[in-house]
Amino acid sequence: MPRLNRIVESALYVDDLERAAGFYRDVLGLAPMLQTKVLTAFDIGGVNVLLLFKRGSCLKTQVQANGSIPPHDGSGPLHLCFAIAADELAAWEATLADKGVAVEGRTAWPRGGTSLYFRDPDGHLLELMTPGNWPSY
Amino acid sequence: MPRLNRIVESALYVDDLERAAGFYRDVLGLAPMLQTKVLTAFDIGGVNVLLLFKRGSCLKTQVQANGSIPPHDGSGPLHLCFAIAADELAAWEATLADKGVAVEGRTAWPRGGTSLYFRDPDGHLLELMTPGNWPSY
Repeated sequence: MPRLNRIVESALYVDDLERAAGFYRDVLGLAPMLQTKVLTAFDIGGVNVLLLFKRGSCLKTQVQANGSIPPHDGSGPLHLCFAIAADELAAWEATLADKGVAVEGRTAWPRGGTSLYFRDPDGHLLELMTPGNWPSY
Repeated sequence: MPRLNRIVESALYVDDLERAAGFYRDVLGLAPMLQTKVLTAFDIGGVNVLLLFKRGSCLKTQVQANGSIPPHDGSGPLHLCFAIAADELAAWEATLADKGVAVEGRTAWPRGGTSLYFRDPDGHLLELMTPGNWPSY
């Protein structure tokens, strides 16, 4: 049986791409590596890619020179969790406070690790997690 | 500025958790590492975690002994892309065909890498991508 080696791309759908990209850039410190009218892509730690799609922009199959991409879209306050170093938890709390982002929840996991929860401008539930909760993290 | 080191968890929302978990287990070869009434978690290559949530099960804040998790949920055919080895592309095509999963799209990326697109039982658009398209992949 062939293997899945990791998740390459995770996607969120947003109402205002400029507003959303601004949040991920200014609050979370990410640098866009690709920007189109309907998509902004961010590298996350050289491991994963976060795709922000303008909601409703991918409802039709995109036919390109080299193939096609079938439709996708989404709504609702989705969830995404980012890895942070344990010794940067306090710095992240300070950064969120400094940027005016309210921490909505906080959990100390029984197996280890601490999580902070907050919202992006579209209401997506973002989590910052220190290591210890998962076998792989 | 503190850093985001990777994406730990990506989430999909499904109508029938047993059906969805069966697909990820039987078609994609993943082993669940956590199963509850509302959640199945899969390890992806020892790097990322895929969370399948029963849709509508996380609409209220979950208060726990060690903290709280704010509400989240989602609908629509979301997008997620998995990394596969270039030399396993043919094996993945054979596996999908063998399991009766239709390939809806295929793209050869200008920068490198090939993607196959197909659906999970809830219509989420899954992609298998060989390396070359992103700076980090």
